Amino acid sequence: MDEYISKIRSGDLKLYALEKSLPADDAVSLRRKYIEEETGADLSAVGTYTIPIDRVVTRNIENMIGCVQIPLGVAGPLTVKGEYANGSFWLPLATTEGALVASINRGCSAITKAGGTEVRILRDGMTRAPIFAAKSVAHAAEVARWAEDNLLLLKVAAEETTNHGELIGLTTYTAGTSVFIRFEFDTKDAMGMNMATIASEAAAHLIEEETKAKLIAVSGNMCCDKKPSAINIIEGRGKTVSAGVFLSDELVSMVFKTNSATLAEVNTRKNLTGSARAASFGFNAQAANVVAAMFIACGQDPAHVVEGSNAITTVDLVEGGVYVSVTLPSLQVGTIGGGTSIATQNACLSTLGVAGGAENPGDNAKAFAEIVASGVLAGELSLLGALGAQHLGKAHRELGRGEK
Amino acid sequence: MDEYISKIRSGDLKLYALEKSLPADDAVSLRRKYIEEETGADLSAVGTYTIPIDRVVTRNIENMIGCVQIPLGVAGPLTVKGEYANGSFWLPLATTEGALVASINRGCSAITKAGGTEVRILRDGMTRAPIFAAKSVAHAAEVARWAEDNLLLLKVAAEETTNHGELIGLTTYTAGTSVFIRFEFDTKDAMGMNMATIASEAAAHLIEEETKAKLIAVSGNMCCDKKPSAINIIEGRGKTVSAGVFLSDELVSMVFKTNSATLAEVNTRKNLTGSARAASFGFNAQAANVVAAMFIACGQDPAHVVEGSNAITTVDLVEGGVYVSVTLPSLQVGTIGGGTSIATQNACLSTLGVAGGAENPGDNAKAFAEIVASGVLAGELSLLGALGAQHLGKAHRELGRGEK
Amino acid sequence: MDEYISKIRSGDLKLYALEKSLPADDAVSLRRKYIEEETGADLSAVGTYTIPIDRVVTRNIENMIGCVQIPLGVAGPLTVKGEYANGSFWLPLATTEGALVASINRGCSAITKAGGTEVRILRDGMTRAPIFAAKSVAHAAEVARWAEDNLLLLKVAAEETTNHGELIGLTTYTAGTSVFIRFEFDTKDAMGMNMATIASEAAAHLIEEETKAKLIAVSGNMCCDKKPSAINIIEGRGKTVSAGVFLSDELVSMVFKTNSATLAEVNTRKNLTGSARAASFGFNAQAANVVAAMFIACGQDPAHVVEGSNAITTVDLVEGGVYVSVTLPSLQVGTIGGGTSIATQNACLSTLGVAGGAENPGDNAKAFAEIVASGVLAGELSLLGALGAQHLGKAHRELGRGEK
Amino acid sequence: MDEYISKIRSGDLKLYALEKSLPADDAVSLRRKYIEEETGADLSAVGTYTIPIDRVVTRNIENMIGCVQIPLGVAGPLTVKGEYANGSFWLPLATTEGALVASINRGCSAITKAGGTEVRILRDGMTRAPIFAAKSVAHAAEVARWAEDNLLLLKVAAEETTNHGELIGLTTYTAGTSVFIRFEFDTKDAMGMNMATIASEAAAHLIEEETKAKLIAVSGNMCCDKKPSAINIIEGRGKTVSAGVFLSDELVSMVFKTNSATLAEVNTRKNLTGSARAASFGFNAQAANVVAAMFIACGQDPAHVVEGSNAITTVDLVEGGVYVSVTLPSLQVGTIGGGTSIATQNACLSTLGVAGGAENPGDNAKAFAEIVASGVLAGELSLLGALGAQHLGKAHRELGRGEK
Repeated sequence: MDEYISKIRSGDLKLYALEKSLPADDAVSLRRKYIEEETGADLSAVGTYTIPIDRVVTRNIENMIGCVQIPLGVAGPLTVKGEYANGSFWLPLATTEGALVASINRGCSAITKAGGTEVRILRDGMTRAPIFAAKSVAHAAEVARWAEDNLLLLKVAAEETTNHGELIGLTTYTAGTSVFIRFEFDTKDAMGMNMATIASEAAAHLIEEETKAKLIAVSGNMCCDKKPSAINIIEGRGKTVSAGVFLSDELVSMVFKTNSATLAEVNTRKNLTGSARAASFGFNAQAANVVAAMFIACGQDPAHVVEGSNAITTVDLVEGGVYVSVTLPSLQVGTIGGGTSIATQNACLSTLGVAGGAENPGDNAKAFAEIVASGVLAGELSLLGALGAQHLGKAHRELGRGEK
Repeated sequence: MDEYISKIRSGDLKLYALEKSLPADDAVSLRRKYIEEETGADLSAVGTYTIPIDRVVTRNIENMIGCVQIPLGVAGPLTVKGEYANGSFWLPLATTEGALVASINRGCSAITKAGGTEVRILRDGMTRAPIFAAKSVAHAAEVARWAEDNLLLLKVAAEETTNHGELIGLTTYTAGTSVFIRFEFDTKDAMGMNMATIASEAAAHLIEEETKAKLIAVSGNMCCDKKPSAINIIEGRGKTVSAGVFLSDELVSMVFKTNSATLAEVNTRKNLTGSARAASFGFNAQAANVVAAMFIACGQDPAHVVEGSNAITTVDLVEGGVYVSVTLPSLQVGTIGGGTSIATQNACLSTLGVAGGAENPGDNAKAFAEIVASGVLAGELSLLGALGAQHLGKAHRELGRGEK
Repeated sequence: MDEYISKIRSGDLKLYALEKSLPADDAVSLRRKYIEEETGADLSAVGTYTIPIDRVVTRNIENMIGCVQIPLGVAGPLTVKGEYANGSFWLPLATTEGALVASINRGCSAITKAGGTEVRILRDGMTRAPIFAAKSVAHAAEVARWAEDNLLLLKVAAEETTNHGELIGLTTYTAGTSVFIRFEFDTKDAMGMNMATIASEAAAHLIEEETKAKLIAVSGNMCCDKKPSAINIIEGRGKTVSAGVFLSDELVSMVFKTNSATLAEVNTRKNLTGSARAASFGFNAQAANVVAAMFIACGQDPAHVVEGSNAITTVDLVEGGVYVSVTLPSLQVGTIGGGTSIATQNACLSTLGVAGGAENPGDNAKAFAEIVASGVLAGELSLLGALGAQHLGKAHRELGRGEK
Repeated sequence: MDEYISKIRSGDLKLYALEKSLPADDAVSLRRKYIEEETGADLSAVGTYTIPIDRVVTRNIENMIGCVQIPLGVAGPLTVKGEYANGSFWLPLATTEGALVASINRGCSAITKAGGTEVRILRDGMTRAPIFAAKSVAHAAEVARWAEDNLLLLKVAAEETTNHGELIGLTTYTAGTSVFIRFEFDTKDAMGMNMATIASEAAAHLIEEETKAKLIAVSGNMCCDKKPSAINIIEGRGKTVSAGVFLSDELVSMVFKTNSATLAEVNTRKNLTGSARAASFGFNAQAANVVAAMFIACGQDPAHVVEGSNAITTVDLVEGGVYVSVTLPSLQVGTIGGGTSIATQNACLSTLGVAGGAENPGDNAKAFAEIVASGVLAGELSLLGALGAQHLGKAHRELGRGEK
């Protein structure tokens, strides 16, 4: 091993290329050793991973030195009545933030007692928006027009790069001489960013050839990937999902120790007025907590928590109770590709019955989206209730600090 | 074990309370078994964790059933010239998205060749903003005034709840009868949300007593926690950090196979104009990717990627090259508390030399913030270069799909 | 007259109904007299208006007491090379802010020297978005689906209320149980808000009948009328227009006493980076000044300055000079209806050759939009130049304070 | 006259300089004649203005050719119970949009029946934010620090340029190498933009000298002037004002033909949820209509409608009725300077008793701000009521189209 390390130091061996000369586990082990020597840190903990990594080192990561282990908990059972997910689910939640699983669990309990969440997917499409430089605003208008008029040609070019993806539409935007073509794809059970990137690049080259506009970048930030943005909220990206549930006055009182009018007031003052006053794009209590915990558990791209957690929470005062809902305009999920086939993540998806591709392609990703939205609703309900009853601080004291 | 499971089914044993009657590993094992029976999923992969969990089950998670393992890679060495972090670092990156580590690595290489990142922390303070209901706009004005006039009293009340935290200021906002008091704390090496929540609650009760305004919630969404919001961008939350580096024309050409003017044009068209046109709060290429990978590796709260990834990337054309920078207004990090003491996460922090509390409290968290910002700069540089050279699609084809 | 005033005081005569019993000028005069007595103010100045008001009191205002006189200046000649406006124009500008006309004038001069503005209209459509309350998220999905599936029926219902307007599309959005149907109309030469409101109301009633969703309001704030909003920036409202011009290095130097690189740097730092840092929706220097002055001169709705002034200004460094552009995504203008037929406003529209309805309906409004966008470009150029040369303060001292 | 026109054509006489050789009215007349010849338009209507223009041509406008006349109506009486405005007011409203004055009038009636508006000014300060280019992020941090540490020096430099203005604070922001120093001034009864610009320029030059950062522009778009921006909403610009009123259930029913719960539901669904879903910064129904009409009547800068109309409207369900409020974070008004001394505009200010400078400088501008906010509340109430009762379309049909 020391010999290898000498070669790395001397530059004869590339740190990133160890997998070419060694079995994966050995390469990882050697690289970790090297980093330990370089930094003086003890990395044995990250070295005791137990997942198979042969595919991981070619698909999921480079320069691997081991694994981080994230505690996994469950909340549930949660009754979900969607069009793709229908039944009772235990939510896998990977987190290190004490009190979170307990909070979601309380929400699941309330929802299940109330008969479950109604869920609907309102839109579905993964987007990528190349940016082109035109010569003038007139040229920019022509480029946009050409793309709009030649969707079929672009569809052919794009779909030659993929076995499963379909280009389902495009929208054009300009800012002076910059032209953005926002392509939208049906990526079935895959989250689909890579597929969309590759297919968009092919389409972009066709646009470049035909219009003589210069391709600046295959992503022009109107996609809009992993940045908070109004375009994703308004147009959607990935799945746009709503989940709702009616809670009777009795249930609110029993589970949350508060009443319907208070739940509505907390939501209006905090989630709507407070977020408005903060010029926020997020009108919810803790959507990001749930989305992050489920995404990490289930092998989703955690940077997609940025848009995935966009959510509006509403509480309608209705006859005999409240109708509470969340709407997530840009939930980007997949059950194949990315981290979904890693052993532990795949197990989490299996818990929900959505691992891998569905018989009817796309149905697993949709079912997963419905479950995530239902989980977000559970988190909202629970936190709204806790805030209403002013118990947040207390809950954190007990759970977050390890007190009993 | 079956006996226990029967008891869970019958309700005689609470699923969440198993740790009260069993050692932690046994409780987790039993609960996992139960969930396997409930869902029919094989959860053995999540059951083969290797970290010690006695503290984890009391502090980091409830209803634990095992661990998810996230591949961990390194990028570096990255030279950082901050006021708290100074030296050469290997960035720990936990991710399942192929090509990401390689991308950051290329950026680290360019930066290190250029002599390293300059980094500065411009502001520092964790915030929490309780919301109160006043009786009228006149009453709301009085409540806000009272809080502004009684910072010292509030400081005493808040600091009674914490050993280390300090209330360093407050700002008031109103929207009609809703009054928001945004408290700002110095939380030293802790990220500090729990500390800030508990301290704010104490201060909020004092405000309630003195002004007769009604405390609606200890968080009124002007904090603004885990939601994209302008208030965090403008006022800051956690640390506001900038990292920058000068790259000579030669270096740009050598490392990125492009030129300075193109780098500047890509940044202006994509990161500035494109994000403006998308009505985005994020003016960067991939800050969230780097922040997410470092946060998960290092035991940070991954839902904080939402605000942590707020970033503006700039490319100045200067004499002989470009000066490239990122500014992250709301990076919320800690080196104690949360997930930082879990074995694998702690090892990652150790790699950077910032695990635990610093001799001068706060210095470790600041050093970590400087390193994260430098890593974000590496990611920006690399992706800007790749986009400029229009290699993004190709890179994904090779790495993300496991091709060679 | 005193007798009338006594009746007003006693309630026998309604202040707002004077026009029913008196000629318009007398009614206005009497009402002014009454207000003078009520307030003690001398209102003779507002009483010396000279426009005919018979139609004004029935169409443009209620409770009229006279007129406010706004100074009107001109900037020009401005060469415009649009698809609807082609030629040389003198821009009518109503303002009370010293230095504004001079500033725009300087921009016109530069543009005209450079050969004129290229202008293109990229989209066109006036929107109105009624909001409905559904019973559940499932019902909300059905309502949205019904509307999408029944565009033709809705078109018939909407167009029965108007002679000229056409319903050209709709988009649906939901937030929990709230359903927004954003209708888009071609309103020809009219700005078209009233037409769109009335037609949307008819369509909304049909939706209400067919889906049993409850119409909450004919405007649900996703229109989005007279509020800054991303939806108008991204989707457009009214006309989306771009104007651009190439300025050679010589021209930049001659007219603005600065150079191309400085113009580009000022734009990048101020209009792009500065606005990004302020979390602004406006990436321009002074679009609102030009839009407001032209809108007031030409009888447009001045509250539409809010969205009409949404603008991104770009400065591209190109071979031999700069290409400067503005893009206005939501310019809402008309040449018939609203204030456009009032004598002084109509004269201003005549100056531009766009008063009243065009032979090909819609062409006058489009020509006007192209001219306004060109005027905005003039204002941007001028202020960028002035800022670059750091003369802004000086210009204000000389003009704004009446110094010579 | 023809002789002059010949000279203009030949370039011997500058169109903008006619006032140097002719009395103001003659210069204006001659210029108008020239434009008539150039454009073929009949401009007699704009030539029959009646206001004195000697000062107008030196202070308010350049290249003047006459005046536009805007119909002026009144709404009221409106009872206002502010700290600066206290009594009964008739609101002057200049508009060409039928139905607007009637709508506001109905709101005034409801408010006055309810006893009047409570109003409070929560903050006050006009801002200007120069932008500097630093050499590096480290230099940027130093520049920001220097400015924060030298407020007193900057105050002296700034205040040397003004007789009345006071520099009351500054905030610093950076984005990479761009440094923004947001100065805040007390400008008393003036709106104060010019004063703030000139004073900021002086301070900026001192910063430039001391720090060697390069002044890019005296306005760096973080001011943020005449652009929709979160910074003005959060930090305030000009005056931050709230107005509120309690309406009993009986009053709601009597005046608006609806009930309290419906008012609250319309506000939550439309003004809060709808605006959230549109990613809007404006959470109100028609604030811009009222602000624009009052601003034009009273000689304010109409481009300030952009920020002046930022408003959140709230409806609290309370015991026995509703408490309705508006909060305007960035209302920029003045009673001296700008267009306030023009005869007709001054008359409008006189109607409100706030023309000119107050005995206690600043009190008139504050009183005016309180009245505007109260007027906005009247408009909100009226439109919420009308929408609730679904009468908006009908109202427009009757008033906007001149039907009886």
